[in-house]
Amino acid sequence: MARVLCITLNPALDLAFNLDALVLGSVNRPTSAQLEAAGKGVNVARVLAELGHSVTVSGFLGSENDAPFALAFKQLGLADAFVRVPGSTRINAKLAEQGGRVTDINGPGMPINATHLQTLIDTLDAELSSAMPPQAVVVAGSLPPGLSLDGFCQLLEHLNASGVPLWVDTSGPALNAAIDAHPAGIKPNENELADWAGDTLDTTPARLAAAKRLHQSGIAHALVSAGAEGVLWVNAQGAWHATPPKVTATNTVCAGDTFVAGMLHGLLNQHDPERTLRFATALSAEAVRHVGVGNANAADFDSLQQHTRIRRLDDSITEGATL
Amino acid sequence: MARVLCITLNPALDLAFNLDALVLGSVNRPTSAQLEAAGKGVNVARVLAELGHSVTVSGFLGSENDAPFALAFKQLGLADAFVRVPGSTRINAKLAEQGGRVTDINGPGMPINATHLQTLIDTLDAELSSAMPPQAVVVAGSLPPGLSLDGFCQLLEHLNASGVPLWVDTSGPALNAAIDAHPAGIKPNENELADWAGDTLDTTPARLAAAKRLHQSGIAHALVSAGAEGVLWVNAQGAWHATPPKVTATNTVCAGDTFVAGMLHGLLNQHDPERTLRFATALSAEAVRHVGVGNANAADFDSLQQHTRIRRLDDSITEGATL
Repeated sequence: MARVLCITLNPALDLAFNLDALVLGSVNRPTSAQLEAAGKGVNVARVLAELGHSVTVSGFLGSENDAPFALAFKQLGLADAFVRVPGSTRINAKLAEQGGRVTDINGPGMPINATHLQTLIDTLDAELSSAMPPQAVVVAGSLPPGLSLDGFCQLLEHLNASGVPLWVDTSGPALNAAIDAHPAGIKPNENELADWAGDTLDTTPARLAAAKRLHQSGIAHALVSAGAEGVLWVNAQGAWHATPPKVTATNTVCAGDTFVAGMLHGLLNQHDPERTLRFATALSAEAVRHVGVGNANAADFDSLQQHTRIRRLDDSITEGATL
Repeated sequence: MARVLCITLNPALDLAFNLDALVLGSVNRPTSAQLEAAGKGVNVARVLAELGHSVTVSGFLGSENDAPFALAFKQLGLADAFVRVPGSTRINAKLAEQGGRVTDINGPGMPINATHLQTLIDTLDAELSSAMPPQAVVVAGSLPPGLSLDGFCQLLEHLNASGVPLWVDTSGPALNAAIDAHPAGIKPNENELADWAGDTLDTTPARLAAAKRLHQSGIAHALVSAGAEGVLWVNAQGAWHATPPKVTATNTVCAGDTFVAGMLHGLLNQHDPERTLRFATALSAEAVRHVGVGNANAADFDSLQQHTRIRRLDDSITEGATL
């Protein structure tokens, strides 16, 4: 199994309240409340650890409320290399009502300055130059306030320069900056990539064209996802399209993170592209059936894989990609 | 200055979100978010510390998220004798919209068992038998899940047996249990006391009669508050009524805690009853003008005291009280 370093720059504590019905302007007493360490890089790390990999997590955490993270990392078997910054990690409140309505209140992140960024770079350098360096690095999620796009690029270029394959999963201007840094892999969805593509990407051919452009620009594994319509993957060996099995979508929050982890699992194990994509797609479909990340030990996971359709796209379709 | 021990059995972290307008069923991005250590006993402690007293705080805290408390105690100069319990202290979310509407979501408390209660009693015993024992003990706020009324009574009787004056500020069945334990002082409001009194207590004579009954039952300082209509106080020296100065009420959350602290400040300094009650009432009025506890250093605090009306009620009114 492999060693992976998962970085979350703007993690959150998720505070989930379950309520019969939310009454505005009143004091509401939820039937339950749960506080949980969250963050896209942490989700990826969790899946990889459950798949048997040796995972180190890093990024920024507020020193005033890092205990739930430290506990979760211990329980999940993740090595903790998060930089502590004075202050509190943001808290995202989720208000789930009996009737099915969910209201999210996502707090602003904890401000990061140049000193914090340098401390993170030093910490990551120590990981990258250790006796057992990671075989892949993942940067996932949004940027915290105070971390400029320039600072983000500086971080990505630094990571890229290490030679360890870098995967980046983010959105908005940070995604465009990440594409310019030519990481080894990215996996935007059609909405996240529309701005960069200058197109709505609402068809498979449009998404394939975008994935090809990404690959041509220097990204070894260009993936574009579109929910139930599946995922396109363009790499040096060709292009594939995966259609997930039909599942009842309950919670899609961790689907993308699960997919990235599933892809890395296959690539790090040197599984062939079809097996890699089938596994990641099925695991992501498993995740959307419930709250939280995908579980490869689900009783019907073999069936989910069997019902995942993988299609290799012929060369005429992928022409122009560096095959 | 005096030494005081302030106990909060069911503290909370207050998570305040400021929003333009809350949109249900959507992802909301608040303009600001603040996480703050809270709890009625902590509020009382804060006021007393600001008035120059030496204050120790205790009660139960979840070990997974106690850092904001530890930091606040350090900043406020409070000695920390809270018992740590596995788990997370509850978080109360407050959603404040630009238009003025405030929606509260108050999480359930952290469950307490008999072992935790015994640990607390042992901790408090150590404080009470120290070389510098407290000169007053305050128990403020609600009971956490798992702490039965029997357990609460056991705690109060244990504290009472120490001989140090005990003040209790709570509500519901816990208030009735507290009254039966004959603490040195209590300060319910008219609504909180209505159940015990078997009356609505919507007039000053009704509240005075209730305060007299409380005093006669063995409570040295029986206080009953009624917001802007003022406070009644029956003690061994007589009875008083205080009418607060007119202020624009913005936030009444900390008014009661501030009042209790103000009363203890006067009593511990052996100020006369009129001075004690005037100070506490004015400080409480100062508190309702803003979020947070009252500030005796407010620029107009002398004026607030001057506009606080204190009336000694004659003996015919208080007859029956143990004068």
